[in-house]
Amino acid sequence: MSYKDHILLKACRREETERTPIWIMRQAGRYLPEYRAVREKFDFMTMCHTPELAAEVTVQPINRFALDAAIIFSDILVVPEAMGMKLTVIESQGPVFDERISSPESIDRLNTEAITDRLKYVYDAIKMTKERLENKVPLIGFAGSPWTLAAYMVEGKGSKNFEKIKSFIYNNPSDANKLLEKLANAVSAYLIGKIDAGCDAIQIFDTWAGILSPWDFDEFSLKYIKQIVNNIKHKNVPVIVFAKGINNYKKIVQTGCDVVGVDWTNDIGHVKKEIGSAKALQGNLDPVVLFSNTEKIKKEAARILESYGTASGHIFNLGHGILPNTPVENVETLVEFVRSKSQEYHLIEHKNVTV
Amino acid sequence: MSYKDHILLKACRREETERTPIWIMRQAGRYLPEYRAVREKFDFMTMCHTPELAAEVTVQPINRFALDAAIIFSDILVVPEAMGMKLTVIESQGPVFDERISSPESIDRLNTEAITDRLKYVYDAIKMTKERLENKVPLIGFAGSPWTLAAYMVEGKGSKNFEKIKSFIYNNPSDANKLLEKLANAVSAYLIGKIDAGCDAIQIFDTWAGILSPWDFDEFSLKYIKQIVNNIKHKNVPVIVFAKGINNYKKIVQTGCDVVGVDWTNDIGHVKKEIGSAKALQGNLDPVVLFSNTEKIKKEAARILESYGTASGHIFNLGHGILPNTPVENVETLVEFVRSKSQEYHLIEHKNVTV
Repeated sequence: MSYKDHILLKACRREETERTPIWIMRQAGRYLPEYRAVREKFDFMTMCHTPELAAEVTVQPINRFALDAAIIFSDILVVPEAMGMKLTVIESQGPVFDERISSPESIDRLNTEAITDRLKYVYDAIKMTKERLENKVPLIGFAGSPWTLAAYMVEGKGSKNFEKIKSFIYNNPSDANKLLEKLANAVSAYLIGKIDAGCDAIQIFDTWAGILSPWDFDEFSLKYIKQIVNNIKHKNVPVIVFAKGINNYKKIVQTGCDVVGVDWTNDIGHVKKEIGSAKALQGNLDPVVLFSNTEKIKKEAARILESYGTASGHIFNLGHGILPNTPVENVETLVEFVRSKSQEYHLIEHKNVTV
Repeated sequence: MSYKDHILLKACRREETERTPIWIMRQAGRYLPEYRAVREKFDFMTMCHTPELAAEVTVQPINRFALDAAIIFSDILVVPEAMGMKLTVIESQGPVFDERISSPESIDRLNTEAITDRLKYVYDAIKMTKERLENKVPLIGFAGSPWTLAAYMVEGKGSKNFEKIKSFIYNNPSDANKLLEKLANAVSAYLIGKIDAGCDAIQIFDTWAGILSPWDFDEFSLKYIKQIVNNIKHKNVPVIVFAKGINNYKKIVQTGCDVVGVDWTNDIGHVKKEIGSAKALQGNLDPVVLFSNTEKIKKEAARILESYGTASGHIFNLGHGILPNTPVENVETLVEFVRSKSQEYHLIEHKNVTV
């Protein structure tokens, strides 16, 4: 079997598979005791910056569970960091920039020239991880969308109402577009570097898609995701776009991506009907379902498989990143259940095709 | 003109009006200097508990702006408080319960008997406010949905991922339903009391609708909103249901409400198409647009009026509560603009009807 025939990559291309592949957003994370053991010795950004550590925690969930993909351990904010913004991750507070973007000059100061040189440690981590994975599963690389990165850079940290970034796009749209353009170019170069280093698929996270009106989303987020997808498509690896909190998934189809990520507040079967069969779908179990019991986990996972139905092109995942306090045994339950239960939906399809 | 012919109440019934009525969620709030002057002298819960103070801040925005409705100053958490849960509002942190709901016993201890006796201060505030309003504008009463109240009561305070309340509904659905049932009954009695005290319309806030999967929303939120709407419909006042973050507005139609509140992440014209003309719609300007300039405020307000189009049944509002740092002059700009600009949409309709 050629590596291109891996079940995850086939599902991205909507080719038939014997079952539904599964991976979990933020699967290399604090819910794993072996991750916490590393994290006790090193702070979060040191783990991102040190290829050996990033590779180690990336493969941890692969060694433990029968997952169908690894995703390189990193953070979306390494890109603004490489542009010159000093970043501290405070455990209780999340990431905080020393100085936020607050003027045209602070945008001009962002250094995108040869940015991939300053992100070489990520590429080294990818190469190391690929060796450790021994082609067992594909490796996903990722980046934040320009809008989501800009939101962090202008707020300076996480936010509740996002008054600063929204005031910025409302009052200075041309400066805002300049920043977003700069980010789209930097992210494109960064992702091409990730693919060149060995990533087999790419996911773009638009974590803050859901805070915008439909018109602002088009102008300040969607446009730049499209640019990135267009800039990297010659690399010929599947691109997943996950825009959390969005209402209109048809817009994500317009980005030219291969896979549309769906959050848990939607019925994945409805989204499939809405967008037609042009794209694969990824999702979408509520991460908090993993705090419940075996019966409920199976019931909700089965509901998602049933809602997607007997068609190719479904990648099972959570509808958002796994939470730090998730019991590890429940992840095991989910992965095993999806692997076995999903065969029913693929068998039926296969029958229909051959009879 | 009979009071029933007030423009807001006509719009709730989808009758023709000469322009689009407007009010603003949380319009009696911290963005107003005259509110802050009261708030400096009294803490938030004292303001809720003291009819004179609640009436005073309720009429403040009516005295300042040409709004089409007042909404009684209060908090959704006065209901669990009246059930025996001690509540503190910490300015930087929001409301915090001394003890959260964490066991079947703590649900049993919730005292709903004669709950309206312990909420008499709200009814007194309503009566006082009605006198001060002199029938200039209708007065809206409100309550939190059982789901949203339960979320606060089980988390004990606001939350990011809502692990406690979701674990509760997943692991103990029958206890959860018992709590929600108790809340639905208490809220129904509370709202009937509000209408009897003089409220001309009711809004139910399901602030945390958007954190649930479609199935969980049906089972743990929608069902109980339906019960409340059904319990109060004999009172014959319009009911607005605002379920923030929802994807499928057709579900809100099923509650039997008169008006569907729409948050700012949706195109109100799309929602209108989706649900047909069975219900009036309320919304939906992004509250942060009020941090921008006059031109942008008018542009975005005009976009919403245009999207709703030339039909009756639109109540202009923000897509969520107004934010504390909103410049007061921008509220003035919005109210005046909507009052004048919206006439175009009603004139055109009138022309079409009479030509």
